[in-house]
Amino acid sequence: MPRREAPSRGFPVSEFEARLEKAQAAMALGSMDAMLLTTEPEVRYFSGFLTQFWQSPTRPWFLVVPASGKPVAVIPAIGAQCMSRTWIKDIRTWSSPNPADDGIVLLAEAIQEMTDPTSRIGVMMGKETHLRMPLEQYAGLCEQFPAAEFVDATSVVRDLRMVKSEAEIEKIAHICGVASDAFDALPGFAELGMPEADIFRRFKIELLNCGADDCPYLVGRAARGGYGDIISPPTERRTADGDVLILDTGSVFDGYYCDFDRNYAFGSASDAVSKAYVDVFRATEAGLEAARPGATTTDLFTAMNKVLEEAGALSNDVGRLGHGLGMQLTEWPSHTSWDFTELEPGMVLTLEPGMEFAPGKLMVHEENIVIREGPPQLLTKRAAPELPVIS
Amino acid sequence: MPRREAPSRGFPVSEFEARLEKAQAAMALGSMDAMLLTTEPEVRYFSGFLTQFWQSPTRPWFLVVPASGKPVAVIPAIGAQCMSRTWIKDIRTWSSPNPADDGIVLLAEAIQEMTDPTSRIGVMMGKETHLRMPLEQYAGLCEQFPAAEFVDATSVVRDLRMVKSEAEIEKIAHICGVASDAFDALPGFAELGMPEADIFRRFKIELLNCGADDCPYLVGRAARGGYGDIISPPTERRTADGDVLILDTGSVFDGYYCDFDRNYAFGSASDAVSKAYVDVFRATEAGLEAARPGATTTDLFTAMNKVLEEAGALSNDVGRLGHGLGMQLTEWPSHTSWDFTELEPGMVLTLEPGMEFAPGKLMVHEENIVIREGPPQLLTKRAAPELPVIS
Repeated sequence: MPRREAPSRGFPVSEFEARLEKAQAAMALGSMDAMLLTTEPEVRYFSGFLTQFWQSPTRPWFLVVPASGKPVAVIPAIGAQCMSRTWIKDIRTWSSPNPADDGIVLLAEAIQEMTDPTSRIGVMMGKETHLRMPLEQYAGLCEQFPAAEFVDATSVVRDLRMVKSEAEIEKIAHICGVASDAFDALPGFAELGMPEADIFRRFKIELLNCGADDCPYLVGRAARGGYGDIISPPTERRTADGDVLILDTGSVFDGYYCDFDRNYAFGSASDAVSKAYVDVFRATEAGLEAARPGATTTDLFTAMNKVLEEAGALSNDVGRLGHGLGMQLTEWPSHTSWDFTELEPGMVLTLEPGMEFAPGKLMVHEENIVIREGPPQLLTKRAAPELPVIS
Repeated sequence: MPRREAPSRGFPVSEFEARLEKAQAAMALGSMDAMLLTTEPEVRYFSGFLTQFWQSPTRPWFLVVPASGKPVAVIPAIGAQCMSRTWIKDIRTWSSPNPADDGIVLLAEAIQEMTDPTSRIGVMMGKETHLRMPLEQYAGLCEQFPAAEFVDATSVVRDLRMVKSEAEIEKIAHICGVASDAFDALPGFAELGMPEADIFRRFKIELLNCGADDCPYLVGRAARGGYGDIISPPTERRTADGDVLILDTGSVFDGYYCDFDRNYAFGSASDAVSKAYVDVFRATEAGLEAARPGATTTDLFTAMNKVLEEAGALSNDVGRLGHGLGMQLTEWPSHTSWDFTELEPGMVLTLEPGMEFAPGKLMVHEENIVIREGPPQLLTKRAAPELPVIS
């Protein structure tokens, strides 16, 4: 299959200007004078800084967003050249790692320039976040601002990141298409009797050949009559007649993820498995019907969950029936009975209905969509309406 | 090339028993009654829990190590089956995400069972660590232990993880061998004029074919007369005569990393580039000579740095000349002028001498070794003594 034509990489400066403007408007509402970002997606969202170097836990990286004016990067010198290719112009570096001061003096200076002693300084503290710097260094930073208030900035970033620009959607659509192509190719190389680990390996190679930059997430399991675990690495066990295989991939193009799965039977499928597949397929259809601007993530949950419950679902340990998607494999919001996030055009979401259809046996489907005026746009190639069988 | 035979996956229970025993001895010295772990390598180190599901930032995961007795896992229900295949038997789960309480009540209960109100509770707060849970949930947890002291547990984990078992070394040696095979194959598929991004893609496929589970880290750059940036993703630029390419990979087998690079010239290499390559090769030789039990990371730094300075190094923005390696791409310690960590048999290290040999032009080499009684054992296949040229 010829490789899909890829969209251009990176973003125009206007994309970052728009993100910054919206963030500063939200910061003003929250009376924040500066926002300190330490995590990869957040630093990248406001700067465009894209590198796998975050894999190394050694060095902290900081981006400070002022109430007005452009963000300031306070980063290890090893990243200076990579950062200089972004729209960020104020780049302050130190030689890291550094035992006496790993950037905290520089960082405090940058924050002081933007704030008064009694300012409110935003840091992400809420759900699905963490602080990517040593706790004791954070405590040391806070001590330098004794009269300031460190406040939660999660909603500023969350509300912004949840609604994607068309340029972001184009990247996600591309990787969803790439992974759809790879899933299409799977029955051509996966065979009954092939070890699980070999199928994973071949599938990763297929993803790269189809145009994925990387495949940081590929989990799944093949098991007779249905799988019970959807987050483990593959085993050397050979696929056998009656197995059901799930492959769930978060592959990446230009820093943007897909996150969806496909199910395959090997040899033959029991009636219970075939029925569960169709039931969960129908739950996804109900999700697609419910995914409209003005509806909520809870409406999505309710629509899908109704189909699953009527089909006799025993339980669902995933804790939700889908979530946001974009710069990370999973993002806010969550489709649950309690989330109630209102859907807006531009939100990229997974629909991920799943159920335990027999004790210890799961069936999980997943598609990726973008909310549009009217019906949603499917970014993945829709799964087959009946369970594909590989012989 | 036939794929190398892989070592067995996972570890015997005795491995985890030994880790726990050493950790509890160190906790006793630090008067810690419990240690709370939240990060992937630490949870895996003490439990064997291996999954790419950590890619999702949505849910926190906790492992609590008591002063005596086995660790307790407090984890989202979606991970119960995967955790149940480890040696951990006390597994407490909740349906996550959960808006009211994302595991904190369960976690507090587990800690309470192990501690007194005035206990010292260890949390990793030091260099190269972070807390992988929302800051506001951590604050809420601390409030439930008003008379307890939360103390830094970094050194407990650091000192343990720095010295690898033979079973760990076997896994690292395997992935170093796999990546060495892939580098050997590179001149067979990389050609003058091939775009950088294509070389990266082909190399990742080669790594998978040679036996890597994954390639979470591949960075580098090709540039005329030498590269200036070693952490960026590839571009579509076609390699041209006089280019020098660096490829630096952190590939993985069974959760253990290699981390090394190789350099190639395209078409031809200038005298300055060829000399820089030989100079940095000699710096690695000096590192290999210095890597003996009882010497320190600072001795390693000094030995390599002397060669680089005598060769006319202008600077080095990496901040160190190598580091620890194992469950993460980079681990403690660092080869710097200030680190002074004493080398012990079983430490797996990178030797990573690099220098700016002309303004904006870097040459960086990297090998992976394990400290042994006497000379170190090279885990990577030693780089060629002269710069390989691809035509």
